[in-house]
Amino acid sequence: MTIVVTGFEPFAGLDYNPSARVLDLLPNEIAGHEVARFVLPVDSARIAIDLEALPLPGAAAVIHCGLAQDRPVISLERIALNLLDFGDRPDNAGKIERDREIVAGGALALPSRLPVRAVLEAWRRAGIPSIASTSAGTFLCNQCFYLSLARLPKEVPCGFVHLAPDEKLAMRYRSPYQPLAVQAEAIRIAIEVTLEARA
Amino acid sequence: MTIVVTGFEPFAGLDYNPSARVLDLLPNEIAGHEVARFVLPVDSARIAIDLEALPLPGAAAVIHCGLAQDRPVISLERIALNLLDFGDRPDNAGKIERDREIVAGGALALPSRLPVRAVLEAWRRAGIPSIASTSAGTFLCNQCFYLSLARLPKEVPCGFVHLAPDEKLAMRYRSPYQPLAVQAEAIRIAIEVTLEARA
Amino acid sequence: MTIVVTGFEPFAGLDYNPSARVLDLLPNEIAGHEVARFVLPVDSARIAIDLEALPLPGAAAVIHCGLAQDRPVISLERIALNLLDFGDRPDNAGKIERDREIVAGGALALPSRLPVRAVLEAWRRAGIPSIASTSAGTFLCNQCFYLSLARLPKEVPCGFVHLAPDEKLAMRYRSPYQPLAVQAEAIRIAIEVTLEARA
Amino acid sequence: MTIVVTGFEPFAGLDYNPSARVLDLLPNEIAGHEVARFVLPVDSARIAIDLEALPLPGAAAVIHCGLAQDRPVISLERIALNLLDFGDRPDNAGKIERDREIVAGGALALPSRLPVRAVLEAWRRAGIPSIASTSAGTFLCNQCFYLSLARLPKEVPCGFVHLAPDEKLAMRYRSPYQPLAVQAEAIRIAIEVTLEARA
Repeated sequence: MTIVVTGFEPFAGLDYNPSARVLDLLPNEIAGHEVARFVLPVDSARIAIDLEALPLPGAAAVIHCGLAQDRPVISLERIALNLLDFGDRPDNAGKIERDREIVAGGALALPSRLPVRAVLEAWRRAGIPSIASTSAGTFLCNQCFYLSLARLPKEVPCGFVHLAPDEKLAMRYRSPYQPLAVQAEAIRIAIEVTLEARA
Repeated sequence: MTIVVTGFEPFAGLDYNPSARVLDLLPNEIAGHEVARFVLPVDSARIAIDLEALPLPGAAAVIHCGLAQDRPVISLERIALNLLDFGDRPDNAGKIERDREIVAGGALALPSRLPVRAVLEAWRRAGIPSIASTSAGTFLCNQCFYLSLARLPKEVPCGFVHLAPDEKLAMRYRSPYQPLAVQAEAIRIAIEVTLEARA
Repeated sequence: MTIVVTGFEPFAGLDYNPSARVLDLLPNEIAGHEVARFVLPVDSARIAIDLEALPLPGAAAVIHCGLAQDRPVISLERIALNLLDFGDRPDNAGKIERDREIVAGGALALPSRLPVRAVLEAWRRAGIPSIASTSAGTFLCNQCFYLSLARLPKEVPCGFVHLAPDEKLAMRYRSPYQPLAVQAEAIRIAIEVTLEARA
Repeated sequence: MTIVVTGFEPFAGLDYNPSARVLDLLPNEIAGHEVARFVLPVDSARIAIDLEALPLPGAAAVIHCGLAQDRPVISLERIALNLLDFGDRPDNAGKIERDREIVAGGALALPSRLPVRAVLEAWRRAGIPSIASTSAGTFLCNQCFYLSLARLPKEVPCGFVHLAPDEKLAMRYRSPYQPLAVQAEAIRIAIEVTLEARA
């Protein structure tokens, strides 16, 4: 089977997105499953279509990754909300959604299908500072997370990881950061723990 | 009818809680309704009982207030989660809850019953910096918010406002702050807008 | 005699500078002295010349004000450094200075000529959250501060106050802020305490 | 000759200090010079005496290290001030100094005797996010920095590096951090660049 890991293209004036770059740092195989990598558009109208085209339904696990510029360390999302609200920040197609449902009439919230507590514990044992988050925001990250939870069969483990800025972004913006290699290792551990919990 | 506004007792070593102090700054009457003020315990086992004792079901509006020490301005919560997770921070009874439902078998999330967009717009027009939040946390604030949404009749407008530190906390901790009088005015506006929307 | 208070023009893409807007909120007279207001250019080459043209040498007090976007409350600077280093942020003339002295051969540092402790205490008594700072940065604020200390007769009280973002900036950037009226009152108090200390 | 690197004992309720732990991660020899490590007390009265006992005057370089809990990455200090002001935070002996000179009648400020720009450039080339700082604070770090600059012969390169929280502190306090191994490598580079500049 395949493990699908996705990142996003750049947005908000950045010239790269750590969530896409982290894909290259993942091993090609985890626990005997091939790792397949995809970069998603930051385009609210297109992302629903692009996600449909990915081999998600039969995957061993689906891990979506995105960037949280204002968090100092990697965070594991517990909840996806049926809500888009971009504030004053358009997506890459120039569109601003406001107070809109992602799936009309869908549940207000869907829980991550990763073993959240086990992943957080494994990160702690590995000495990786991290955050358990109850909000993936109301932008493209949350849209992608909610769409996959709403569409995929319940037996496919599916979750969302927010990355912190990496060293390259930190050098440009003097922001807090977590080394990208550490964040890649955290993703690898999350997948491993997820597959173990499923077995 | 009565407008019920609640705050919390002190916690985490603070000697007062701005969410309790703000109650004294509210007018006694808003749009012809009396304002009733209550201070809730930061005690996960007791709060469910104490809330039952309050005159909430017949209220014109119920606004719960709590302190978010790490936010620079007042925030309006959109969503309550059916989740308690105190991390390593016990409540005032010394208890730590972890990955526990607030209402067994209840909905994962419940939406605020305030007119969120209208309140945010009114705050903006009044020149009050504010945040729209999609996470009230997983501590007592969220517990109180979720319990009221789960228990109160749907026609009672009910919501949660997180206060930023006030000037007194800022002087002690050198944190960002928003003047308590400004936050009190924001609460008054929220109530007014809520009653108008209901009328 | 005259009390001179200066602010700066906008920079870094802002369409106004709170340090210029605050000037309008000051009283016209403090302790019998007229308040004269000037807005300085964010232009490293011009500021030395423009400062020369101001009536500073015979002033009762000189208070320079500038914006510190990353500080949550007003701060009183204790020290001016003989150093310009703009990093990657040009001034409004597009120039970047690096590791350059402001006054060739001048002292490395000059102390504020305001009664720093007395001002901080007065702010505290007035309930105004504030910071005592030992670095005015290495941009135009520090240049203006150092130039005045280097040039003015020792008997002219002279100092620098960094403003925090005001409510208008906070609404745009969701940053921490301190109400501009509170910051104006802090400047008025600083002047009053300075004149008393001098008397 | 010997390269002297110092850290500090724990303070402010921490059970260890990354500036002491980092010493163990340095190589035993840099550019042919032995690395000697010392941990200094957070005791304002004792530190002047303890520094006297160290083999600093004949050292090839002296690098003092301390912790800046509120900075996300390692910072290189440019300036030591002749000022102690502990605010409301006592040293480990319970003493609070306020507006006191470190060396009576000494210069207000002394510049770092490291090749600051060259070190910052070397850190940048090595991909290590860092900050150039113009304030080492007014606590023990600045006291130690100022004392060494005031006492050591001018030909001894001497400077101060503020460490960010490391991964262990980040796990406890959920603060931003920089891996301690990265910070140790930054210190090694600073020493190497300093010795080259001197040669």
